[in-house]
Amino acid sequence: MDNFTFCSPTLFVFGRDQENNAGKYVKQFGGTKVLLHYGGSSAEKSGLLGRVENSLKREGISWVKLGGVQPNPKSPLIYEGIELCKKEGVDFILAVGGGSVIDSAKAIGLGVVYEGDIWELYSKQAAPAASLPVGTVLTIAAAGSEGSNGSVVSFQREDGVYKRDCGGEFMRPKFSILNPALTQTLPPYQTACGIVDIMCHVHERYFTNTEHVEITDQLCEGVLRTLIKEGPKVMKDPNDYEARANIMWAGTMAHNDICGVGREQDWASHNLEHELSGLYNCAHGAGLAVIMPAWMDYVMKHDIKRFARYAVNVWGCEKEENPANTARAGIAALRKFWKSLGMPLNFQQLGAREEDIPLLLNYLQIEGRTEGHFVKLGTEDCRAIYQLAADYPG
Amino acid sequence: MDNFTFCSPTLFVFGRDQENNAGKYVKQFGGTKVLLHYGGSSAEKSGLLGRVENSLKREGISWVKLGGVQPNPKSPLIYEGIELCKKEGVDFILAVGGGSVIDSAKAIGLGVVYEGDIWELYSKQAAPAASLPVGTVLTIAAAGSEGSNGSVVSFQREDGVYKRDCGGEFMRPKFSILNPALTQTLPPYQTACGIVDIMCHVHERYFTNTEHVEITDQLCEGVLRTLIKEGPKVMKDPNDYEARANIMWAGTMAHNDICGVGREQDWASHNLEHELSGLYNCAHGAGLAVIMPAWMDYVMKHDIKRFARYAVNVWGCEKEENPANTARAGIAALRKFWKSLGMPLNFQQLGAREEDIPLLLNYLQIEGRTEGHFVKLGTEDCRAIYQLAADYPG
Repeated sequence: MDNFTFCSPTLFVFGRDQENNAGKYVKQFGGTKVLLHYGGSSAEKSGLLGRVENSLKREGISWVKLGGVQPNPKSPLIYEGIELCKKEGVDFILAVGGGSVIDSAKAIGLGVVYEGDIWELYSKQAAPAASLPVGTVLTIAAAGSEGSNGSVVSFQREDGVYKRDCGGEFMRPKFSILNPALTQTLPPYQTACGIVDIMCHVHERYFTNTEHVEITDQLCEGVLRTLIKEGPKVMKDPNDYEARANIMWAGTMAHNDICGVGREQDWASHNLEHELSGLYNCAHGAGLAVIMPAWMDYVMKHDIKRFARYAVNVWGCEKEENPANTARAGIAALRKFWKSLGMPLNFQQLGAREEDIPLLLNYLQIEGRTEGHFVKLGTEDCRAIYQLAADYPG
Repeated sequence: MDNFTFCSPTLFVFGRDQENNAGKYVKQFGGTKVLLHYGGSSAEKSGLLGRVENSLKREGISWVKLGGVQPNPKSPLIYEGIELCKKEGVDFILAVGGGSVIDSAKAIGLGVVYEGDIWELYSKQAAPAASLPVGTVLTIAAAGSEGSNGSVVSFQREDGVYKRDCGGEFMRPKFSILNPALTQTLPPYQTACGIVDIMCHVHERYFTNTEHVEITDQLCEGVLRTLIKEGPKVMKDPNDYEARANIMWAGTMAHNDICGVGREQDWASHNLEHELSGLYNCAHGAGLAVIMPAWMDYVMKHDIKRFARYAVNVWGCEKEENPANTARAGIAALRKFWKSLGMPLNFQQLGAREEDIPLLLNYLQIEGRTEGHFVKLGTEDCRAIYQLAADYPG
């Protein structure tokens, strides 16, 4: 196990009706003037936004609203939010939505404090150091941003779209309100994308070269088994509160780094996927369903034993005499599960195009560096993984 | 799943040599004058205390020392610590030791701020509300106090010894330094007691009446399987750093409540045990090894399915046609495992006496109330569990 530090100071407020306490928690964390940040009209129509506004009103907290966050949150709205916060003297950002809204809120929080252009932070030219405090009312179980220290944004630059991440411990939300009932109205496709995203947050941590990490291995496997058990329940009955609750908390556990401390993590699949959702504006989870198994196929030989353990402990595969067969059975079980959730498994099903692979590699800016840690992937490795994802029969 | 709030703000600093950063973290959390609180002479002889003192010196932090904390930390030293802190103007308490030292430090932290007698807090006559900040350098993987919101103290009162707990979210340590190498010198018996204690922290959460808690069930089972796998390694080779590391982090995960949120917890076994270690001054883990399986035998019929799941998922028992047989096999596997670690399994092996059962019940102050939640135990239930523990053949 590697040395590590871990601190997850976010106050999680979990359960039915908790959004009515949003104002109370904004006040607890010192907010007096709030940017209420959200996505489309569903938060308004469902009455959620109204309940949150009422909770702010009850605490005597004023607010300005900025809706319109799109999936794969876009930089123009973020720059607009930064200006709005500065003009209005906002001291707290409350994100009401899924990972895109929260990531957008985190980016605005950075931008209000940072003197330069936040592109410098996301393109790693400068290190982030401070942010306005952010709170969340989560409506989608997926990204884990409600407890994580990171944010991913699609920057619309003159020469193209760059989906980039930025992280820092101070970026963890002050509080996150998780009411599973709010996720019940999510359509099946988005629900499935969320489950895939959560599983991949675990995969990125599980496939490691760090040895002797039994405790985090066990936690990873437990989160994955939860999703395999609870996922089909919500696909069958979107109103299954209890299954929604288990998936929602699994989503937080998958990405607050409880499952990742003390071990080298990979993250190549996420980065390869970001170019897909950046280019095609597809759902991140759907892109991952295409990329992650291709990555697994490609890197499996690097540590057959780990993939065999994954197959047995997560998917209940039989241990075969040849561990490579066990390993392959695990990846097959993963694909079968994601297919059963209605996920795409290849480029065509995703709406991606094989002929764009050079473009994807270009956006990835992989030349002269590598992606991932489990196996360090160069340009040709990344090309091969995109190709495997394109070719997969589905 | 029940509604819950969860916040674990402790900064965990994990790994080799991290005790040399103690001063840095005291400073980060605002400490300028420290009470350095520890147990026996081993911390001095091993050089650990010196390294911590040097780290304080490097940061320009002054300190006073109070050693002598005993297992099942006693109230007289705590009262002495409270007076010392007040006299010296201490603003931060640094515990160097195991759970007893940390719990003693937490009690001192409460006492410096509270105007009355801390007995009022531990006997639940008054609610704790504030504390001096506490940091820890952990030397024993067991109690989980390094990340928990509670403290357990043996109060030496005129009419006897009362082992009582006190809790509050503000009581979680500001930081906890966990260097697994520091646990390598722990004798086998104490190491085993720690493993039992950690497992019981999970058991107390696992056996619940709350339904649909798959995610926490899975995390509980994962922590338990880790201990079953890593425990025998450290019994065989006390210097196995990697196994020590896994056990140490499992100990924190078992008790920072990651495994317990959203579900009713039990804690009857802990409370029944506290009277044993209070009366006989035995190790808490050893007492639990005697009480917990007896509790399991007694309450098993309340939810055979849960005990059968425990047997299969934690111990790898075969599913038998009659689930009661599966359940019994799980409890038998637990006893066998603890026996293999050198733990006592009945009153005689522990040094407890059957004829003291009325005295234990008296100290438990069970008349007119109940213990536990999985099954609410009255006086006769508690008597029966003590009796089962006394009678077990070992």
